[in-house]
Amino acid sequence: MRIEELDTPAVVVDWDVMQDNIRSLADYCRKHGIGLRPHTKTHKIPAIAKMQVQAGSKGITVAKVGEAEVMAAAGLDDILIAYPVLGLSKLDRLAKLARERKITVGVDSMEAAEGISEAAKRAACRISILIEFDMGMHRCGLQSPEALVNMARRVEELPGLQFAGIMFYPGHIWDLPPDQFPMLLEVSQKIGEICEKLRQHGLDCEVVSGGSTPTAYNSHLVRRLTEIRAGTYVFYDMNEVGVQACRLSQCALKVLVTVISNAVAGKAMIDGGSKTFSGDRLISGDKTGFGYVTEHPEIKFVSMSEEHGHLELSPSSYKPRVGERLSIIPNHVCACVNMHDQIYYHRKGIIEGMWTVEGRGKVR
Amino acid sequence: MRIEELDTPAVVVDWDVMQDNIRSLADYCRKHGIGLRPHTKTHKIPAIAKMQVQAGSKGITVAKVGEAEVMAAAGLDDILIAYPVLGLSKLDRLAKLARERKITVGVDSMEAAEGISEAAKRAACRISILIEFDMGMHRCGLQSPEALVNMARRVEELPGLQFAGIMFYPGHIWDLPPDQFPMLLEVSQKIGEICEKLRQHGLDCEVVSGGSTPTAYNSHLVRRLTEIRAGTYVFYDMNEVGVQACRLSQCALKVLVTVISNAVAGKAMIDGGSKTFSGDRLISGDKTGFGYVTEHPEIKFVSMSEEHGHLELSPSSYKPRVGERLSIIPNHVCACVNMHDQIYYHRKGIIEGMWTVEGRGKVR
Repeated sequence: MRIEELDTPAVVVDWDVMQDNIRSLADYCRKHGIGLRPHTKTHKIPAIAKMQVQAGSKGITVAKVGEAEVMAAAGLDDILIAYPVLGLSKLDRLAKLARERKITVGVDSMEAAEGISEAAKRAACRISILIEFDMGMHRCGLQSPEALVNMARRVEELPGLQFAGIMFYPGHIWDLPPDQFPMLLEVSQKIGEICEKLRQHGLDCEVVSGGSTPTAYNSHLVRRLTEIRAGTYVFYDMNEVGVQACRLSQCALKVLVTVISNAVAGKAMIDGGSKTFSGDRLISGDKTGFGYVTEHPEIKFVSMSEEHGHLELSPSSYKPRVGERLSIIPNHVCACVNMHDQIYYHRKGIIEGMWTVEGRGKVR
Repeated sequence: MRIEELDTPAVVVDWDVMQDNIRSLADYCRKHGIGLRPHTKTHKIPAIAKMQVQAGSKGITVAKVGEAEVMAAAGLDDILIAYPVLGLSKLDRLAKLARERKITVGVDSMEAAEGISEAAKRAACRISILIEFDMGMHRCGLQSPEALVNMARRVEELPGLQFAGIMFYPGHIWDLPPDQFPMLLEVSQKIGEICEKLRQHGLDCEVVSGGSTPTAYNSHLVRRLTEIRAGTYVFYDMNEVGVQACRLSQCALKVLVTVISNAVAGKAMIDGGSKTFSGDRLISGDKTGFGYVTEHPEIKFVSMSEEHGHLELSPSSYKPRVGERLSIIPNHVCACVNMHDQIYYHRKGIIEGMWTVEGRGKVR
């Protein structure tokens, strides 16, 4: 079947572009001796996680216990849940997983660490702990090296736990023009300070887990970093284009849509809105629009209802007919994939298969 | 099981509040002799659609063929797909449905009408057509009564189709303080004009389908309206509170979350972000925030990552501990429900069951 024959809206991945993205970051990490632990929240598809591992990833990252279960059931191992696990039900599921797989959890509170310790004790297993440090995003993470070291010492004493190192998420560092390199130097210094303080207390900081897609190819500038958790790089999207983390041609995922109405002058409606693309706005570049219309980049995707995408035609002489098909690169690919039960993949326009988004909806 | 024992994040509906919402609009419609055809996109759950029908709805509305299939499979009949159906695959599924159920489709182009006619011919069935008119939202719909009448005459001649009337979506009319009542008068006049012109051409306008939740209880002010398609009223949400379409106590659906981090001063993170609530912003009231924290309304839900909700604590002396639970009313309940595979329902705090969101993900 050719792409043109797919019913719309449909999410389609260009296999070759995706493979290039996977290979390219794996090669970079190999060259610089940095581990790659891709965040699989972007695709939530075990088959893609396996490709990432085969290309050289040391393990994977997930956000939720339910996502870890899906990945483990498909045979993946060495899973970092980069998210505090709280609540009896989730903790018991976590411990059950940890009896069969190498599981690490990122936390920033003793409440979370103590719950995990109790669960590990009940299940007679060991769970590794990374303590999250706030490098400047101000979302989660301990606020000072001293606080982190204090917590590490307490974690090390809890039964069933093993303090394995630190993690941070540099979500505040989007792009890195040369005048912002000091930001990375600051991160390096902070890591050095934490590792030194841990050493003084006899604690080894085996893992320093950082990274995100926009900063991925600058990871070698951060000293002592042992692994990165980039996720979006597998598909890329308009947010990444906006911060020049990739070129348009590296965007592997598009949403195929059909024009369903052109009754209102100057507008066209497509059969995908926020329930197809997610409602995520563009947070980089010119911060306008809900996606890039590849066939007619001059057209603006100006707003969305749940099932309607609103295209503004005025900058163009082009007026699409009802039934015409367009393909659109989403703003935020992780959120877009999460709206769908299945996504297709193609090579040179021929649909070669479909993946079930197995981790979708695993909110717990 | 009590609500407090549910693992989070979890979406929970207060059964009694929902029943009141269903009954109240059904009573209003009965009193004024207006048909109610609730838009089931809000819940996508056949069991709730059946309650709406039992309360007096004449049929239901859906947005996609896939949603119609789910509802029909559960036994629902008289289904309006308020959305142009395009593409061979969807058209054949539509015609198959129409052999077993009363199906009506809303369209605004001859391309859509012709495709439906062809499919109806192939399947030897009849499909009713509503023609959409643009009452001022400028999304879809014909632009003049003349254009609508011309299209109705052409539709009436197509095999397999039956012109049944008109539909409109007054999405531009949010709230109705007395000085905006002229807007409804304008709608009434336009309907009158269309019906008169249709009559002159020997066409009956049996159905005049309009309405939305914010305008629902003013529907009697629109003359000749035969039915409304309100959806959100079943649960209500903060957008509806913002336009005073409901009181807070009428919001039947809340998202239970757990505080997962309070490491950053002045902030708390909860275990639900855009993949739990949807990324939809508040588009009414003060247009800020991502949900209403019922236990601490003074706290602002200021932003979201995919799996983190960011609470701003500064207006409060309250500092939640890690593990504490909160319940939050979402901005846009239709988009929120659409993120979940299951939602729970309770009566007076006791969980009585769970519904599968069967229509979720039926994007085609």
